[in-house]
Amino acid sequence: MKELRNKIYKVIFEADTKEGKLFDVILLWFIILSVLIVILESVESLSQNYRSIFVNLEYFFTAVFFIEYSLRIFCVRKPLKYIFSFYGLVDLFAILPSILGLFMIGSSSLLVIRGFRLLRVFRLFKLGRYIGEADILMMALKSSRYKITVFLVTVISLATTVGTLMYLIEGGENGFTSIPKSIYWAIVTMTTVGYGDIAPQTTLGQFLASIVMIMGYGIIAVPTGIISVELSEAYKSQAPKTDSCPNCFAEGLSPDSNFCRICGHRL
Amino acid sequence: MKELRNKIYKVIFEADTKEGKLFDVILLWFIILSVLIVILESVESLSQNYRSIFVNLEYFFTAVFFIEYSLRIFCVRKPLKYIFSFYGLVDLFAILPSILGLFMIGSSSLLVIRGFRLLRVFRLFKLGRYIGEADILMMALKSSRYKITVFLVTVISLATTVGTLMYLIEGGENGFTSIPKSIYWAIVTMTTVGYGDIAPQTTLGQFLASIVMIMGYGIIAVPTGIISVELSEAYKSQAPKTDSCPNCFAEGLSPDSNFCRICGHRL
Amino acid sequence: MKELRNKIYKVIFEADTKEGKLFDVILLWFIILSVLIVILESVESLSQNYRSIFVNLEYFFTAVFFIEYSLRIFCVRKPLKYIFSFYGLVDLFAILPSILGLFMIGSSSLLVIRGFRLLRVFRLFKLGRYIGEADILMMALKSSRYKITVFLVTVISLATTVGTLMYLIEGGENGFTSIPKSIYWAIVTMTTVGYGDIAPQTTLGQFLASIVMIMGYGIIAVPTGIISVELSEAYKSQAPKTDSCPNCFAEGLSPDSNFCRICGHRL
Amino acid sequence: MKELRNKIYKVIFEADTKEGKLFDVILLWFIILSVLIVILESVESLSQNYRSIFVNLEYFFTAVFFIEYSLRIFCVRKPLKYIFSFYGLVDLFAILPSILGLFMIGSSSLLVIRGFRLLRVFRLFKLGRYIGEADILMMALKSSRYKITVFLVTVISLATTVGTLMYLIEGGENGFTSIPKSIYWAIVTMTTVGYGDIAPQTTLGQFLASIVMIMGYGIIAVPTGIISVELSEAYKSQAPKTDSCPNCFAEGLSPDSNFCRICGHRL
Repeated sequence: MKELRNKIYKVIFEADTKEGKLFDVILLWFIILSVLIVILESVESLSQNYRSIFVNLEYFFTAVFFIEYSLRIFCVRKPLKYIFSFYGLVDLFAILPSILGLFMIGSSSLLVIRGFRLLRVFRLFKLGRYIGEADILMMALKSSRYKITVFLVTVISLATTVGTLMYLIEGGENGFTSIPKSIYWAIVTMTTVGYGDIAPQTTLGQFLASIVMIMGYGIIAVPTGIISVELSEAYKSQAPKTDSCPNCFAEGLSPDSNFCRICGHRL
Repeated sequence: MKELRNKIYKVIFEADTKEGKLFDVILLWFIILSVLIVILESVESLSQNYRSIFVNLEYFFTAVFFIEYSLRIFCVRKPLKYIFSFYGLVDLFAILPSILGLFMIGSSSLLVIRGFRLLRVFRLFKLGRYIGEADILMMALKSSRYKITVFLVTVISLATTVGTLMYLIEGGENGFTSIPKSIYWAIVTMTTVGYGDIAPQTTLGQFLASIVMIMGYGIIAVPTGIISVELSEAYKSQAPKTDSCPNCFAEGLSPDSNFCRICGHRL
Repeated sequence: MKELRNKIYKVIFEADTKEGKLFDVILLWFIILSVLIVILESVESLSQNYRSIFVNLEYFFTAVFFIEYSLRIFCVRKPLKYIFSFYGLVDLFAILPSILGLFMIGSSSLLVIRGFRLLRVFRLFKLGRYIGEADILMMALKSSRYKITVFLVTVISLATTVGTLMYLIEGGENGFTSIPKSIYWAIVTMTTVGYGDIAPQTTLGQFLASIVMIMGYGIIAVPTGIISVELSEAYKSQAPKTDSCPNCFAEGLSPDSNFCRICGHRL
Repeated sequence: MKELRNKIYKVIFEADTKEGKLFDVILLWFIILSVLIVILESVESLSQNYRSIFVNLEYFFTAVFFIEYSLRIFCVRKPLKYIFSFYGLVDLFAILPSILGLFMIGSSSLLVIRGFRLLRVFRLFKLGRYIGEADILMMALKSSRYKITVFLVTVISLATTVGTLMYLIEGGENGFTSIPKSIYWAIVTMTTVGYGDIAPQTTLGQFLASIVMIMGYGIIAVPTGIISVELSEAYKSQAPKTDSCPNCFAEGLSPDSNFCRICGHRL
């Protein structure tokens, strides 16, 4: 019994054995397919014509994820800790909507929570070469979080000020019906998205908008520059360190040196 | 009396004591909440249903900021210098509209000036780890200000030329009713915002617009590159990984030196 | 006979002789012109007025590319390998639609495949200074492909989650008629394209959209940073500013070495 | 006479004397103001109400620029070379439209050529600190021109291919009435401008558009990376070079060293 639990544990939770990898790949495909079903079911023409197929596939995936969830609870050493962990809750919410759907209608929209299971995808990435790469990205983002925060606060303060000014200048008749809507416009403009559902009509409004656009255009340079520099730093810290000479203790010798380049000592 | 003034001064103007920090945090929240009230009051459905709540909250915040303003004038050594300083005027304008609103209607829109008080937020950032980070950003922006100016002049000259050309090509019937409006369109296009409220209709206009877009697309690379490089320089100047001489205590020796470059001491 | 084939081979397939370069330049212009004809033919006003000119030019280009294709098959040593290679198929598809068009109508749209022949352009670039430049770009893109993949997966997962949420929030009456359409909107927004054909109308939708925009705005910094750093690395690996040893001719010695790190020769 | 010519030459063409600087600043303001007049005259409400003011100002600026042009021809040593130089032609075109306008109507639109005179602005920048900054930008753009060309050819080829595909998929009924228009749409999308005047309506079209957007989003990283790296290189080449030791010929000594850090020789 204990051996079986250990075996299942290794297959389900670990990814360094052949079976573990296979399980992860199969589960990954089930997740992607089940999300695809949720997406396609929302297309009216499809959901009307292939209703039974969608319903049956939904039951199938719910069964698969129910078995997976049961196995996880069965083989994990501390079931409660797993159940209330982030992934435990995600696993529960992935089956809950369909099970509840057997009894009542209307909760089928909750199926989208299954989308969170896509986060599992990243476990697969850990298998291969991606680990180091994702680590560098994470490191760069982490060490630039203070600068990013300063940047975000600046952007939001600016959007609030600009939005309020535009509300005063343009007013409700030009689409700027309230300050929140004007702030929404300011963000749409500063991020260069520019839907055009709300656009300034007065000359003064267009002048202010022009300034905001050029500013937003320049502001995008700041996070880009931050990430570039932090990535560059993260790269350097990962680069293979050099050797040092045991005779003169000189640092920075390239790893393929035969002799110390400072004192000539044979390494 | 003098002691009280000193005590209040330390709490209100400085941020390195426990009470000073607490005061800053509470004031920060009052500012954010009062700005939120201004924003929400502009939403018609809310302002109609909860008119009295908004009015009372407005009186409350005005009272709070009035007390704060009075205390600042009371405890500062040179009251006139404070009153006519940037933050002094901001503090005054934060309460003025509401007080004036007691006597007349229509000036309530000026409440948005309270938004400027959000600038106080940055004082809080000085408390923590943010200081060094913001400094690097400021340093990078400062040392790239000449390049940014050259860049801005180029962008505005380009927008003027392109706008005038489009005014000639498209004309008023396609929305390009005047050169200022065409320049506005050129800026909307070059910054890749692209509202679509004005868009070229003729083949020649669309061809010129395509060139402008690709150009604008390339131009955004310039400020990004500038900021990246300047940030990188600012980083380097902040992080000297050098040794110091044990004999003359000279700083900034490169790590692979055999001799101190200042006093000649063998390291 | 064999000599003739060799001569033609050198002219057609190689670019280091004078005739080879000339052939490449002429072919390049024929390709560009034939693509231009396809493009212009799609403009209704032109195709109606100059029908015969378009038809004749099409026959001319088809004849030219047919002769080129025949010559390639004639002079190449392994014709089958060429025919089923990428460029062999491109060459075939460049003439096939017109030849088929002699017998039936409707396949003339396939003429656009000729556009792929534009890929031949890059052979020309190899002639000149461009080779090193394109190599650096390729190298940088290649070594950042894992990071780009992680980035793309993140963007697509995000677009799926955001799209589904917006479908739930906005619903069909505001243009978000299905999850695929909502994902399309999410991509339009996150990439800051922002057509405005679908735009959130509810307050909650606009709030979520604002977050997505600022996020998308920040996310664009990641690939830019990656490419910048990789390009920088590719540059460095191309430009080793090192010395060489006069004794053992070892390359890559750092410029401040006292002794050769390979043979120990005092420099 | 000769002395006068020399004096005028120094004032008009050179900028290192006090009078030369003053002349440049005044001319700069005249250019900006005359361009502003052209811009404002295009606003219908202004041109109708202040017609006489615009006409008189136009005569005034034409007179000023006519005098300037005459003085330039008078004092320059080789008048013909100046007249047919770039700036000579710009100076001529700046007065020609108004002078022609005295005799006929309709050519007043040519006044916009005066906008080119704004290029003179850059001469002013040469006065101050801007010279080094603009030089670095130019150097970076110059040394990246091959990469930028490769990049532009790729973007245009891609836009052509994508535009043709969208023309086949969407067709005229959805706004993609011809391949040139579809290419225009492709450029609008890839550069993330996104007017929304033409937008895909079919599912397949929206799917292809999504791919194009994400691609365009990533492609913007390439020129940014190129410029960043080239700017960084341009910076380095400008950085103060290090000294070398006359005894051991060690390179890379910082300029404030008293002793060689390798052999200890007193510098």
